[in-house]
Amino acid sequence: MNREPSMHEQVWVNGALQREVSPFDRALHFGDGLFETIACRRGRPRFLSLHLERLRLGCARLGIEPGSLEEIAAEVHLLASEVDAAIVKVLLTRGTAVARGYGVTGREKATRVTFRYPWPEETQAESQDGVQVRTATLRLGENPALAGLKHCNRLEQVLARREWTDSAIAEALVFSSSGKLVSGTMSNVFIVDGTALRTPRLDLCGVAGVMRRVVLREAARVGIPAHEDVLDVEDLGRAEEAFLTNARIGVWPIRMLDGRSLRCGPVTRRLQEVLAPLLEDPIDA
Amino acid sequence: MNREPSMHEQVWVNGALQREVSPFDRALHFGDGLFETIACRRGRPRFLSLHLERLRLGCARLGIEPGSLEEIAAEVHLLASEVDAAIVKVLLTRGTAVARGYGVTGREKATRVTFRYPWPEETQAESQDGVQVRTATLRLGENPALAGLKHCNRLEQVLARREWTDSAIAEALVFSSSGKLVSGTMSNVFIVDGTALRTPRLDLCGVAGVMRRVVLREAARVGIPAHEDVLDVEDLGRAEEAFLTNARIGVWPIRMLDGRSLRCGPVTRRLQEVLAPLLEDPIDA
Repeated sequence: MNREPSMHEQVWVNGALQREVSPFDRALHFGDGLFETIACRRGRPRFLSLHLERLRLGCARLGIEPGSLEEIAAEVHLLASEVDAAIVKVLLTRGTAVARGYGVTGREKATRVTFRYPWPEETQAESQDGVQVRTATLRLGENPALAGLKHCNRLEQVLARREWTDSAIAEALVFSSSGKLVSGTMSNVFIVDGTALRTPRLDLCGVAGVMRRVVLREAARVGIPAHEDVLDVEDLGRAEEAFLTNARIGVWPIRMLDGRSLRCGPVTRRLQEVLAPLLEDPIDA
Repeated sequence: MNREPSMHEQVWVNGALQREVSPFDRALHFGDGLFETIACRRGRPRFLSLHLERLRLGCARLGIEPGSLEEIAAEVHLLASEVDAAIVKVLLTRGTAVARGYGVTGREKATRVTFRYPWPEETQAESQDGVQVRTATLRLGENPALAGLKHCNRLEQVLARREWTDSAIAEALVFSSSGKLVSGTMSNVFIVDGTALRTPRLDLCGVAGVMRRVVLREAARVGIPAHEDVLDVEDLGRAEEAFLTNARIGVWPIRMLDGRSLRCGPVTRRLQEVLAPLLEDPIDA
């Protein structure tokens, strides 16, 4: 691939610098695709192998032929290497429609659209002081066939995010149609129960976040018990310490939930310490 | 709008003949849009005002500013007028993303992509003899916020359609996560109960089809009782007469459901008679 002189924002379509996609792409019509949002620091992508593993599993579940994951990895590395910090989004769709309608012919060829976005301006306040969070009114539909995947059917998240405009609110927690706590609109959630972590199971809905996985792994490594669990509104109501995770933010303590104060407590702080080197100076592990 | 010499397949983006859309379009990323599939016969669109009304209501519910519906209507009429029969699909998205993420700024400008597809080759066998139908394994997630809308989050339909490859099977019926009958993957369903029609309520999931609405209206007009109802697997199992509807197919009797024979009965035949003139020689009513 020949790269143009480094600009911060770039779009590559199937390995070529390009600003268009086909209007027949099935992601446009049906949200028939998957994506990964990869945080890049110091010229290197964070947890790229975990992102690619989720992408591969998602493709297998949806029946999308992903093409070469090595090519995707090389593209992400190259885009990351040109700037100090960036968000690289890989959107992999089932490709342009061979025929009209939902049916798949098996002859579709995946479309890969890779975006490099500037790292958003931010302060350290969210990580240090915690964020204000609300509970969404919208509830997520439950569908095991799609649960866990970072697929492109995201209208529920769009609608949940539209419920508030107050910029002091960083995120909303969302429950499922049967009343189970799932996640934030763009993050996963953990509650601290004594000295242990609990995070919602994602077998009915929700996205199995890469940072969620890293937190579960690192917690186990340093001896903090951590469980995936069925959590409801009472579990959340009892929590005195809780935090959000995603690939970009790492760990954000929740300092206020629907007006109730929570503490940025010791378990959250310990995890932030453990994660800090992995987040600031990425190695692919 | 200047039209090129009539070709059967065309794509118009925001009123211009074009084969590209922006890779930043929110429909590509999130399925953040709506669509209408309009059957056109004898150079005229069928039930265009009902399609536009559904589109307008969908935009209101999702908070999308649709722009001029008159302009959409004019475009559909023009595309229909150039050919004897066609499928015109209007895809209306929230527009290109102003910022990264699910959030909406209010400054998005809707993207309209209008496709003219050739009318599919077909025989009259489906309408006359009925079709074979199966029950899908996949169940639909329940979400009142999205129920009824013809939105672009259609992975459930894509997956349900992938469950079979036998071309003798025309459609699959789909239940919701709590076991309620909803629809087909690309059609609505009616069962005949005595001399009355029953069709699933669409308050938790499913698409409120234009042909479904026309059937409910025309049934009332000719004195066939018709109700929207909560239907389950037993209601379906008891049905001896049932049919599918969508904007293109009109009414397809179900002659076999999971290997069980149904009859192309008198209520279905009566409705086909009533609908035939509206389908073949469209007037906009």
